[in-house]
Amino acid sequence: MKVTISRRAHFNAAHRLYRKDWSIEKNDEVFGLCNNPNFHGHNYELIASVTGEIDQETGYVLDVKILKDIIKAEVEDVFDHKNLNLDVPDFKDLNPTAENIVVIIYNRIKAKLDSKFELEVILYETPRNFVTYSGK
Amino acid sequence: MKVTISRRAHFNAAHRLYRKDWSIEKNDEVFGLCNNPNFHGHNYELIASVTGEIDQETGYVLDVKILKDIIKAEVEDVFDHKNLNLDVPDFKDLNPTAENIVVIIYNRIKAKLDSKFELEVILYETPRNFVTYSGK
Amino acid sequence: MKVTISRRAHFNAAHRLYRKDWSIEKNDEVFGLCNNPNFHGHNYELIASVTGEIDQETGYVLDVKILKDIIKAEVEDVFDHKNLNLDVPDFKDLNPTAENIVVIIYNRIKAKLDSKFELEVILYETPRNFVTYSGK
Amino acid sequence: MKVTISRRAHFNAAHRLYRKDWSIEKNDEVFGLCNNPNFHGHNYELIASVTGEIDQETGYVLDVKILKDIIKAEVEDVFDHKNLNLDVPDFKDLNPTAENIVVIIYNRIKAKLDSKFELEVILYETPRNFVTYSGK
Amino acid sequence: MKVTISRRAHFNAAHRLYRKDWSIEKNDEVFGLCNNPNFHGHNYELIASVTGEIDQETGYVLDVKILKDIIKAEVEDVFDHKNLNLDVPDFKDLNPTAENIVVIIYNRIKAKLDSKFELEVILYETPRNFVTYSGK
Amino acid sequence: MKVTISRRAHFNAAHRLYRKDWSIEKNDEVFGLCNNPNFHGHNYELIASVTGEIDQETGYVLDVKILKDIIKAEVEDVFDHKNLNLDVPDFKDLNPTAENIVVIIYNRIKAKLDSKFELEVILYETPRNFVTYSGK
Repeated sequence: MKVTISRRAHFNAAHRLYRKDWSIEKNDEVFGLCNNPNFHGHNYELIASVTGEIDQETGYVLDVKILKDIIKAEVEDVFDHKNLNLDVPDFKDLNPTAENIVVIIYNRIKAKLDSKFELEVILYETPRNFVTYSGK
Repeated sequence: MKVTISRRAHFNAAHRLYRKDWSIEKNDEVFGLCNNPNFHGHNYELIASVTGEIDQETGYVLDVKILKDIIKAEVEDVFDHKNLNLDVPDFKDLNPTAENIVVIIYNRIKAKLDSKFELEVILYETPRNFVTYSGK
Repeated sequence: MKVTISRRAHFNAAHRLYRKDWSIEKNDEVFGLCNNPNFHGHNYELIASVTGEIDQETGYVLDVKILKDIIKAEVEDVFDHKNLNLDVPDFKDLNPTAENIVVIIYNRIKAKLDSKFELEVILYETPRNFVTYSGK
Repeated sequence: MKVTISRRAHFNAAHRLYRKDWSIEKNDEVFGLCNNPNFHGHNYELIASVTGEIDQETGYVLDVKILKDIIKAEVEDVFDHKNLNLDVPDFKDLNPTAENIVVIIYNRIKAKLDSKFELEVILYETPRNFVTYSGK
Repeated sequence: MKVTISRRAHFNAAHRLYRKDWSIEKNDEVFGLCNNPNFHGHNYELIASVTGEIDQETGYVLDVKILKDIIKAEVEDVFDHKNLNLDVPDFKDLNPTAENIVVIIYNRIKAKLDSKFELEVILYETPRNFVTYSGK
Repeated sequence: MKVTISRRAHFNAAHRLYRKDWSIEKNDEVFGLCNNPNFHGHNYELIASVTGEIDQETGYVLDVKILKDIIKAEVEDVFDHKNLNLDVPDFKDLNPTAENIVVIIYNRIKAKLDSKFELEVILYETPRNFVTYSGK
């Protein structure tokens, strides 16, 4: 019996969408307002979902406290109240679009989970825009 | 790396569930209050989710502004503040159940997307009732 | 010690904003899309809040079940799955704007409450637009 | 055309996570605060999703009223305002973790549905923690 | 310039509504399902709102971290994962209705705030039922 | 009959809490993580509520479209996708705490409303932290 457990978390961050190797004009054309050189920001909401067999001893797939602690160490402590472009090494050479952020978060959490588990991460950039990645 | 981007939108509409070729009694029996001949209505909430590869240049699967514009042209401009039975040709001979509406919306958005993308549409008729269609 | 108890409820209805004694042009100018002659509709969400002293015997201001039953009889049974303009006598000669609806709902609930209680009603026409009335 | 219809419901219950065959110390170590011998509780929110072909006659996959009634009889009437450990026979010898509850709910609803339908159940223990089961 | 700052928090607890000095029959009549002798429970959501002048030095009415810490010490640490009737001395002789709980929480937070501030507390017993108290 | 109409809006922005005339140490002590020199950001949600008499001709207190347009011109066009400290003149010499932002927004909207109306503005910095100002 495979069950999925999901945990919601959040962090606040500034970012700017642009490529250093493009002209200002091209960045403006592709990224519009998101290319504000002074940055803008979001309250990112995150749902991490782990799928696995129920442990017959505990009745848990995974103690949600373990998942909560991984999210804290790998996401909140690294991204919260930060400028993604300037403060987070993962985005030194990577444009912090929602798509790229969700892949980074997936990889960070996946590396801390037993390989027997499947993982899916949903990242809300706003309540109206969100992205999903499950390593496929 | 396949990522899903999702966009939330909404429209308000009146509708009535019934079949012209059934008696009033049969319509009442099957559709109950939803068969009010004077119509009732909903704030429909919509989530359109597009799955594809991340473009390595932009970091986008698809600029969410493009998805937003497709939803505006194909759904909001056509359905918002309308009577689905009387004002929207798609439902001239189709009972506007949530199931039928979500298929129509899926087909309208899918036709405007590059065929390399997969699409899923969720339609909330109320916060407690919703339907999902992904073309399968 | 005055405490306020609040109860959330909802109903779905069709409506049209217009005045019979105005021309089509004037109705269109003032009410825009809301003047669709075929109606449109909403999932109305309602919060009724009753303020009074805590009964020292029960620890209740008012058993919330009583408030729930009043809302059912006076609002849900009368408005749900209805066309406000055509099916609800309160709006026979009254334009069903959110403002007018909330006053009608306030009056209907207030008439069933002991006069020692104060009442406030919030009516959400959409998650983004709402109105509040407290009889002042 | 396979469409999924989803219905949201809720119940309030008390529970305690522990195993009778473990020592207090081991229960405390594994279940922490959730092992309070006097119980704690939750507002459980539930989403039951049924997938099937659209009936070409009615435009329904399944009348959502039928799904609502099954949820009422099989979940709300059995679990609401109850102590899961003491009042609900399903948990007489089963630790009421969110994972175990969602499997029980899935089995209860599945048994009442035509076998042609697929079912998925999401159970929110809190707005931040939830589990999903689809019988796989 | 008086501004109100609000902080949302939550705790999970079991409770039972009844009076020791009433018969089972009277308790059942007045409190219905809420009088389950084995308890039931809720995810209580809390909004504490503090009103005062903006400090011209900091731009804060009150550092929200101070409010968060008061809520943690006075509410979450005392009520979370507890049985309100059995584990929380405040309810030893007080029926834990939402009305009585919100007054207790108000008094606990108010006692830790500078007397220059006004306080209002909203307590959600469920997403549909909530109570408000502001010391009047 | 005085009714309140409310409109929800939103904008995304970066900001940093600090005073130019304080040392880094003092800014860190008072503003903590919010003093990140590279900025962080939020999805700000806004509710503007206007109170007045119902116009007996239209049934409106104020056409919500007018309120929506004022919010767009005075708040969204000025603050959205901006760095509050660097891009918005209102905060050139004013620390952009939630309290100061809500007062600025109140003043901007109030100046565009007929003086017969009362105004209240709620500003959510996160779903858990918000502030309210009504000009008192």
